[in-house]
Amino acid sequence: MGLEIEKKFLIKDDSWKNQLTTGVYYRQGYISSHPDRVVRIRTIENMAYLTIKGKTMGAVRSEYEYEIPYEEAIEMLTQLCEKPLIEKIRYKLMYNNLLWEIDEFEAENKGLVVAEVELEDEFQPIDLPPWIGEEVTMQPKYYNASLIKNPFSSW
Amino acid sequence: MGLEIEKKFLIKDDSWKNQLTTGVYYRQGYISSHPDRVVRIRTIENMAYLTIKGKTMGAVRSEYEYEIPYEEAIEMLTQLCEKPLIEKIRYKLMYNNLLWEIDEFEAENKGLVVAEVELEDEFQPIDLPPWIGEEVTMQPKYYNASLIKNPFSSW
Repeated sequence: MGLEIEKKFLIKDDSWKNQLTTGVYYRQGYISSHPDRVVRIRTIENMAYLTIKGKTMGAVRSEYEYEIPYEEAIEMLTQLCEKPLIEKIRYKLMYNNLLWEIDEFEAENKGLVVAEVELEDEFQPIDLPPWIGEEVTMQPKYYNASLIKNPFSSW
Repeated sequence: MGLEIEKKFLIKDDSWKNQLTTGVYYRQGYISSHPDRVVRIRTIENMAYLTIKGKTMGAVRSEYEYEIPYEEAIEMLTQLCEKPLIEKIRYKLMYNNLLWEIDEFEAENKGLVVAEVELEDEFQPIDLPPWIGEEVTMQPKYYNASLIKNPFSSW
């Protein structure tokens, strides 16, 4: 099984932008946004992925990801996925040997910026970067699958 | 896009078994059984597939199918899919140049036998075999995804 162990945080300020990093455009939608059985279609530039995620237990979640043809992903995003779609720019940067992914949301979720760190183990100590704010791992409203039903612009 | 055009029928009698045909065991479960966005995991012997199906319009439905690793399919069937799973033996036979698939259901759906024919075009004339009974294409209770919620044994 794929296991995804990650923690999610808000951002205190824009100082993470001082590191040289280039954002990549992500577009994604949900065929199922049920929290115990998420089915996501995602495009990253000209690549596309179908991902299935199980129930989140703390910071741990089962995850299965398959690369799929880009054209089929576009069809499913347009015709099958719940609307609105999620659009975001993802930046990746290293801080003390851990990879951080920072998502700047666009469209209905513009203004929301979230940082995620993927871990080997749920109890691994994390050296938090200075620009990290409140942890929101356990708050379902920050799940991308929740942001289609209740986008940041309506909070 | 994949387009699936098929019609579904009940069976009048067992005379289809006179043709030499060997059944293959199918096991499948649903990550989403929403009729407009079905996500199915299926194993056929030691092969496994992830299939996404859109809304049915008459006999036509969009379909996207991807082969996935067998072990991951088993994990998803066991841990993520709605229960009960669908188990059936599928027989394939040709009748006047059309391929018929006959599903004999097992477990909670034992006793149900359904024949499907895949078409090139919704309005293609079909030469029905003599053992074919009532057409049930438009009856949602015969969808496999419905048979997990309302199995044949409870009809």
